[in-house]
Amino acid sequence: MVIKIGGNAEVAISGLLLEIAHLYRGGQQVVLVHGGSGLTDSLSVRLGRAPRTITSPGGMTSRYTDAEMLSIFAMAVAGEINTQVVSWLQGDGVNALGLSGVDGRLLVARRKEAVRSVTPDGRVHVVRDDYTGRIECVNGALLRQLLAAGYVPVVAPLALGQMGERLNVDGDRAAAAIAVELQAEALVILTNVPGLLTDPQDSNTTIPTIAAEKLDEYMPYAQGRMRKKLLGANEALQGGVARVLIGNAPLPDLLGGEGTVISSG
Amino acid sequence: MVIKIGGNAEVAISGLLLEIAHLYRGGQQVVLVHGGSGLTDSLSVRLGRAPRTITSPGGMTSRYTDAEMLSIFAMAVAGEINTQVVSWLQGDGVNALGLSGVDGRLLVARRKEAVRSVTPDGRVHVVRDDYTGRIECVNGALLRQLLAAGYVPVVAPLALGQMGERLNVDGDRAAAAIAVELQAEALVILTNVPGLLTDPQDSNTTIPTIAAEKLDEYMPYAQGRMRKKLLGANEALQGGVARVLIGNAPLPDLLGGEGTVISSG
Repeated sequence: MVIKIGGNAEVAISGLLLEIAHLYRGGQQVVLVHGGSGLTDSLSVRLGRAPRTITSPGGMTSRYTDAEMLSIFAMAVAGEINTQVVSWLQGDGVNALGLSGVDGRLLVARRKEAVRSVTPDGRVHVVRDDYTGRIECVNGALLRQLLAAGYVPVVAPLALGQMGERLNVDGDRAAAAIAVELQAEALVILTNVPGLLTDPQDSNTTIPTIAAEKLDEYMPYAQGRMRKKLLGANEALQGGVARVLIGNAPLPDLLGGEGTVISSG
Repeated sequence: MVIKIGGNAEVAISGLLLEIAHLYRGGQQVVLVHGGSGLTDSLSVRLGRAPRTITSPGGMTSRYTDAEMLSIFAMAVAGEINTQVVSWLQGDGVNALGLSGVDGRLLVARRKEAVRSVTPDGRVHVVRDDYTGRIECVNGALLRQLLAAGYVPVVAPLALGQMGERLNVDGDRAAAAIAVELQAEALVILTNVPGLLTDPQDSNTTIPTIAAEKLDEYMPYAQGRMRKKLLGANEALQGGVARVLIGNAPLPDLLGGEGTVISSG
């Protein structure tokens, strides 16, 4: 099972880690993938750098990650959040082991060398110093070796580029790529909303189930970061993962069907 | 072979990494351990926190690492330096894999809960919020498993405490503990001086060889951070490592006898 958590949920995370500890003691193999946008933003502000975003012509936004922002991102996700989550899990008796995608070529990505970005007034310009990548290859042998030895891999969304450079990759899609490589029984994407909502302002409008082949029809409901979660879900399902669960319920409840369940077949 | 590098040598490091790549292609198993004092200091200043030190009654100085400084230390060593060194090695064709001591219980340490600190005017006070530890256990099975699979472990000097907390540990002594656990053929401690000098102001006064059983007699020559390197060297030799090499020469020259060679028997 591959579980994606946000990087900001410091308050809510202790319950989740206990739930993961429970799964682990039950013999469930788990890979945890985390984000880190919130800490990256606050750290960059403290270091005098306002976070910036790139908006693609298709309307998708992503972090503008120049060389300095890449260092800040690495410090936040691989330095602080990853070691913190690993040590918390260790405190709960889980033999967690943190990696980022550069480690042992866990996540190899292709850098987007020229990114088209649309300004609020509609002008398009090309950004060339962005260190963001699209994952092309996952080192499944490494994960399987660690899982077989009883470790719980905890993965920070940093990838290795073709030139040996570090790249920022999206955590949801990293989790999807890992789930596909391991042919996980489920990809669980934890977020701060109960699931995919028909009305983003009303948390009582969760869509309970979606058939994988109909996922496209539901894309219009996805706003903001939920779009990348659905993209990741789609990549996982296309790649052979049977179930993707999205929501903010306790893990046992999500596994029991709360939140949005997207499944194939 | 266990190689300890500083965390500040960004300029000189590319040659070293090529030398490690050469050893790796020759079939040599290598574990790399790095520091990170310089970046921790500069990052903490940028974040508005002046670095502080604790001086023990015996005159040994160490970083005062409260909870906030521990986060800064983790971001610098595990977030920035570790991922940077790993990606550079990957760019040189070395399948490096970064870990800190919290990962898979690689380095388990005992926190020094009450540390006596001497002020410049000689007063002793007790510091209770310091997250510094002394390594008690190394997960050698994890390192051997990774080495056997062809990875080069790159280790950041963060350890796991008994309560699941992150701890700052000294990089030289972490390298020594790892060398002992693996019964390495040599521990190489790279630094910014040519070796142990009889006159710290004169780089032509390198002591070429020291017999392990006479190391105590040479301790008075060690100033500042060199004291911890000799402590680490002593721990490695006592633990069964045959040779400790200290210096700043290119790696092949150090292995050929340049710098200070401390050996047993």
